[in-house]
Amino acid sequence: MERDYSAAAAFESPSIIKTEAKERHGKMTDELALFDVEITPITYTASRDPELEEIAFWFSTHRNLADRFAQVFRRSIDEVLDGQRTGRYDLYLAEGVGRVEKTEKTYLGTKVEIVARAEFDLGYGHPMDYLINGVNVDAKFTMGSNWAIPKEALGHICMLMTANDNTGTFHVGLLRTTADMLNAGMNGDGKRGVSVEGKRNIRWLVQNGELPKNFLLELKREEPGSLAKIWHTSSTQKISGAGGQARVNELFRLLPGRLIDRTTVVTVAMQHDGPKRVRDARKHLRPEGFIILGHLKPAPQIAEDLGLPVPSKGSWVSARLALVPEQSGRRTTLIDGARYSLWQEGDTSIAAPLIDT
Amino acid sequence: MERDYSAAAAFESPSIIKTEAKERHGKMTDELALFDVEITPITYTASRDPELEEIAFWFSTHRNLADRFAQVFRRSIDEVLDGQRTGRYDLYLAEGVGRVEKTEKTYLGTKVEIVARAEFDLGYGHPMDYLINGVNVDAKFTMGSNWAIPKEALGHICMLMTANDNTGTFHVGLLRTTADMLNAGMNGDGKRGVSVEGKRNIRWLVQNGELPKNFLLELKREEPGSLAKIWHTSSTQKISGAGGQARVNELFRLLPGRLIDRTTVVTVAMQHDGPKRVRDARKHLRPEGFIILGHLKPAPQIAEDLGLPVPSKGSWVSARLALVPEQSGRRTTLIDGARYSLWQEGDTSIAAPLIDT
Repeated sequence: MERDYSAAAAFESPSIIKTEAKERHGKMTDELALFDVEITPITYTASRDPELEEIAFWFSTHRNLADRFAQVFRRSIDEVLDGQRTGRYDLYLAEGVGRVEKTEKTYLGTKVEIVARAEFDLGYGHPMDYLINGVNVDAKFTMGSNWAIPKEALGHICMLMTANDNTGTFHVGLLRTTADMLNAGMNGDGKRGVSVEGKRNIRWLVQNGELPKNFLLELKREEPGSLAKIWHTSSTQKISGAGGQARVNELFRLLPGRLIDRTTVVTVAMQHDGPKRVRDARKHLRPEGFIILGHLKPAPQIAEDLGLPVPSKGSWVSARLALVPEQSGRRTTLIDGARYSLWQEGDTSIAAPLIDT
Repeated sequence: MERDYSAAAAFESPSIIKTEAKERHGKMTDELALFDVEITPITYTASRDPELEEIAFWFSTHRNLADRFAQVFRRSIDEVLDGQRTGRYDLYLAEGVGRVEKTEKTYLGTKVEIVARAEFDLGYGHPMDYLINGVNVDAKFTMGSNWAIPKEALGHICMLMTANDNTGTFHVGLLRTTADMLNAGMNGDGKRGVSVEGKRNIRWLVQNGELPKNFLLELKREEPGSLAKIWHTSSTQKISGAGGQARVNELFRLLPGRLIDRTTVVTVAMQHDGPKRVRDARKHLRPEGFIILGHLKPAPQIAEDLGLPVPSKGSWVSARLALVPEQSGRRTTLIDGARYSLWQEGDTSIAAPLIDT
């Protein structure tokens, strides 16, 4: 099977993916620094490693490759955190209540391997993890800054993956892990890290990809007080059951105008049925003037009218409303013939209108 | 807080639990043999280990204790197998397609710890896993015949758990892991096994409990040909997508009269939406005379009329029907005024009636 590798390289070259990521998210967090590697443009030639380029080409034929990998990492991390059972959202917490154990971090690599296999319908290799395009490929994931390559993988192609929930970035690349690409020293398990030269030679499939946001982890970093308040809500109540609902109420009460996803709701509730908790929060917060908008009509229109983020399926945004006259000069929305704005200091407190969703 | 330990012991003594399990499932697989221990009745006294008895009492106040632990193990195993992504159902397969890796087996213990914590709302201990009734308790799970007790747990109370998906049994007990309850020799990690004397001293919470059935694993053991046929169905098609539906069709076509649970459907389909696959299978199999009964009316009545197992929520049973005269002498059911029996050799092939579910 003849392939035009130069075309493949052009189609999905690292620089193109990077530009996309920048444009899409309008931010520039160059995490390559983590790897102690300067960004140097690499020229790919067909002769360099045809097997590796074949696999890179195969991946490049998948639409939304970066988004699909982003979901692989997001789902893997979320499943290991198991927020609905544990209330956890911070993969990096090693001590105390909500800690993530070492076995869980090790397992995260296996989960990533499983989710990526399912996402891209990859076969089982022998002796490596995957069979891609008839070639054995080992899956290697790290939460840190380097990968541990076992001697069995020496000379094989490795799919090197890393994701960082703190910086919200991920990378996926291919490297044939020959001895000259690895550090000389071995760790206790007889595994070797990828050398600086090795990192320079990684054929990136997605470089500096954007991981879907971990809402609670971001909140912990940027508004630890709000997070503490939400969890504190239930401290005098049972942690599950009614306590979970009280926390979800507080989440929407405290953070109007923020897009809240399902993972966040089930983690805060420590319960499986997120949508049900949101429906109940809607009832509980109505007397205080709050609405909670989902993806069903007329909610998206109301969100747009008020200048709020527009929820898609599995996400919600809350707002506290006030009745305003027509010539208020504020952004307004019509609900059942009455005109509402976002509540601000000085407005009269009202009960929120019922919205048919 | 004063507690009557003797009463607690009587309420949930090992012998009572064992009798219940036997009566409930009508079978006697005494798995204690696995532990090389003869069954000797143990007399509990309040003075023996008040802290341990307090915890045993605390568990004994939970209704359906055995069933709840059974679900803890079933869910943990199913989540690690991740059938909807991997098609796996056999925890013990170590090689080839569908293999379960060592890190996954290690992680199963952590998953059990997490699921049990959520199920019984157990606190986080320090330095042990749990805080139960103000006492540090370590969670120890094994797929094998002994537990590995690290030196940090020496002198602490351990919740010893084991589950076997092949025999369909599980055990949960408490033991204060003092040095005299452990084997002298250490393994590579400096961990010690529970000695014969230690096993004799385990305060069982559930002994010889019945693990909810793993349908596909049982099929593999008892009818490997059927299992191969179901998976073979998709060998000429893609493994996911249409192939998954073809396998689900074959599952219900090949195994009428068998209660099929959601885990089985999503594993065979390798897709998330089990109920949707069943609804589609219903359409595909109707021309061949098959109905697939769920838990919604009138399905349970039809199942009962025909002498089939009656599905509860999240389970289904298929049946191939034939039209029969009123005086057939066979079990029949009325659907839309027509009388049907289970199809048998010699009956005319018909298209199955539509059932409103």
